[in-house]
Amino acid sequence: MKKIINDPKHVVDESVAGFGLAHADLVRVETDPIHVVRADAPVAGKVGLVSGGGSGHEPLHAGFVGPGMLDAAVPGAVFTSPTPDPILAATKAVDGGKGVLHIVKNYTGDVLNFETAADLAAADGIEVRAVVTNDDVAVKDSLYTAGRRGVGGTVLVEKIAGASADRGDSLEQVAEIAERVNANVRSMGMALTPCIVPHAGEPSFTLAEDEVEIGIGIHGEPGRERIKLEPADAIVDRLIAPIIEDLPYASGDRVLLFVNGMGGTPQIELYIAYRRAAEVLAEKGISIERSLVGNYITSLEMQGFSITILKLDDEMIGLWDAPVHTAALRWGR
Amino acid sequence: MKKIINDPKHVVDESVAGFGLAHADLVRVETDPIHVVRADAPVAGKVGLVSGGGSGHEPLHAGFVGPGMLDAAVPGAVFTSPTPDPILAATKAVDGGKGVLHIVKNYTGDVLNFETAADLAAADGIEVRAVVTNDDVAVKDSLYTAGRRGVGGTVLVEKIAGASADRGDSLEQVAEIAERVNANVRSMGMALTPCIVPHAGEPSFTLAEDEVEIGIGIHGEPGRERIKLEPADAIVDRLIAPIIEDLPYASGDRVLLFVNGMGGTPQIELYIAYRRAAEVLAEKGISIERSLVGNYITSLEMQGFSITILKLDDEMIGLWDAPVHTAALRWGR
Repeated sequence: MKKIINDPKHVVDESVAGFGLAHADLVRVETDPIHVVRADAPVAGKVGLVSGGGSGHEPLHAGFVGPGMLDAAVPGAVFTSPTPDPILAATKAVDGGKGVLHIVKNYTGDVLNFETAADLAAADGIEVRAVVTNDDVAVKDSLYTAGRRGVGGTVLVEKIAGASADRGDSLEQVAEIAERVNANVRSMGMALTPCIVPHAGEPSFTLAEDEVEIGIGIHGEPGRERIKLEPADAIVDRLIAPIIEDLPYASGDRVLLFVNGMGGTPQIELYIAYRRAAEVLAEKGISIERSLVGNYITSLEMQGFSITILKLDDEMIGLWDAPVHTAALRWGR
Repeated sequence: MKKIINDPKHVVDESVAGFGLAHADLVRVETDPIHVVRADAPVAGKVGLVSGGGSGHEPLHAGFVGPGMLDAAVPGAVFTSPTPDPILAATKAVDGGKGVLHIVKNYTGDVLNFETAADLAAADGIEVRAVVTNDDVAVKDSLYTAGRRGVGGTVLVEKIAGASADRGDSLEQVAEIAERVNANVRSMGMALTPCIVPHAGEPSFTLAEDEVEIGIGIHGEPGRERIKLEPADAIVDRLIAPIIEDLPYASGDRVLLFVNGMGGTPQIELYIAYRRAAEVLAEKGISIERSLVGNYITSLEMQGFSITILKLDDEMIGLWDAPVHTAALRWGR
C-alpha cells in the first residue's frame, strides 16, 4: 500500500486537522467527538444542515460546509458510519432555533446512527428532520444498503437544500426541497481500479487488467456487471441509458448534468465522458441547463467516474445558482 | 492501459470539446488550430493573458480561462508543447489593443514555440511580453528543460497576473507583477506512481512497490532521488526543507501555502500533507496568509503531490483575493 499517510489509524484525524488549518476562515474542527462546523455556527434563525458518513469520499462532506450549503459534517472512519455521538454534537452545534435537517446517504449504518442522534436531539428539544438520499440506479439492495444507495445526488441535495435554508426557509420547506431534489435525481458509476482502505492495507476487491465494473458503489461494493474495458463513449452509454430510463427523463426536460470522478481519474478523462453524455442528452432532446464536472464524491484513489442527472425546475435552478462558499464548491461570494 | 478514453489520438480534442460544452458560459473552444478563449474575447482595453503547454496537467491551463485569470489557453498533445500556430491564433484572439502577456512554463519546447508565436504576433503589430515560470527547486536542468522547471507557481502567477490585468494595469505592470510572483515562489513535488501517456500506452518509468521519487517533474522526469516509502510527515519534510532554504523564506514572512495533487492522489492525503507543511511553517515563524489545496497542476493519473510556497506582499494578497471566475478557480463572482 503506497499512500501519503502516517499511522493508518490517524488518517481521518490528521486529514480533518489539515482541512481545518487550510480553511479556518470557513470551518471549526471539533475533535471530541470529531465533527466539522461552520466557523460562525450556530446561525440564529436559520435551519441547520448536517450531513456525514464514512470518510474516503472527500470533498464530501466537510468540503461542503460553509455559507449556502452545510452547517456541519460528521466524518466517520474510512468507509464507516460515524456513531450517534458526534452526529448529536454536530446537531446541537448548528441548531439556530429553527430546527436541523439531516442529509443521510442510504447506507444501513448511516441511517441507523443518524436516527439515533435525531432521537437524542429531539429529547433535548431540537426539531430534526431527515432526508435519505438514494439516487443510485445500479442495484436495488447491496452490501451496506437496503434499497438504493445514496451517491452523487447527495451533493446536489446539499447545495440546493443549503440555499433553501440560507434564504430563510422553514425546516419543513428545506426538507421538502431536499426530498424534491432526491426524487428527481438519478446516478450510476463505474470503476477501472479498486481502492485500498488504509487500515485494511489491501484492495477490497480486484479487477483484471482489461476489466471494469459497471454500477459500482462508492465503497467498491459490487455493481451490475464486470465487462471488458470499452471505449469511453460505450461506457458512458452503459451508465446513462439506465439513468434516463429510470425516472424517466424525457424530451423537453431541463437537467443538471454532473460527471463525477471517483478520486484517481484525471480531469482529462472526465471531460471525455462529459462530451459523450452531453451528446446523448442532446439526441434525446433533454436540455442541459447546468453542469458540474470534477471529484465531488469519491472513493479514495479509485479510478472511475459516475454520471448524475437532476431534472430541474425554476426553483431548483435559482437555488443552485445562489451564492455558496465552501472549500469545494464556491461561487457568488 | 485502463483509461476512460476513445481513440488515444483524440484524447485532447475530445476532452477539450467536453470542456467547452460544460463551460460554454465561460469559454469558446476553437478547433483549427485548437485553443480555448474567454467567451467574451477579446476584452477591449485589457491586457490579454495567454498560457499553454502540453495537455495532461488539467485543470492547467484551460481550467483557468475566464474573468480575472487567463484570456486563452493553448493545449498541446499530452506532455507535448503546442506549436506556434495555435499560440499565435490565441494571441490574436485575445488582443484587446493593450498588448498580450504570454505565461510560459520553462520547458524548452514551450519556450521556443511561444517565442516564435510572439515574433509572428509582433509582425502583426501586437505587443507581446513573456514571463517564463521556473519555480521547481528539485533539479537545475532536466529532460525537457535548461534551468529550473515551471510547476505549481505557474498557477499563482496566472491568478495574480490575471487580477492585475483585470484591474486595468498596463502590459508592463502585468508583466512586472508576474515576474515578481515568479521570483518569490518555489516548489517541489514527489510521486508514488508513474502515469501513462495515452498514445504511448506504457508508463514512462517504473517505481517499485515500496519506492517513491522525490523531486519528480510533472511529466515524470527524474527528480532528486528515489527512496523507500516513508510516512507522510517525513516526505513533507523532504520537500519543504529545500523550498524554504532556496529563496530563503524566513521568520516573519507571510506566505501562500499550496499543496497540489498530481491527479491520482485523493484529497484525504493532500490534507494530511497540508497539516504537516503548516506545522513546519509555524515552527519557523512563517505565517500562512492564504492557502490552496487540490488538483491544480497534474500529471494525468500520477499519484503524488507537490508543495508550493509564495512569499506574499500586500499587493499580491489583494490580487489573489480579487474576484475570479474560471472552471477550476472561482470566488467573488
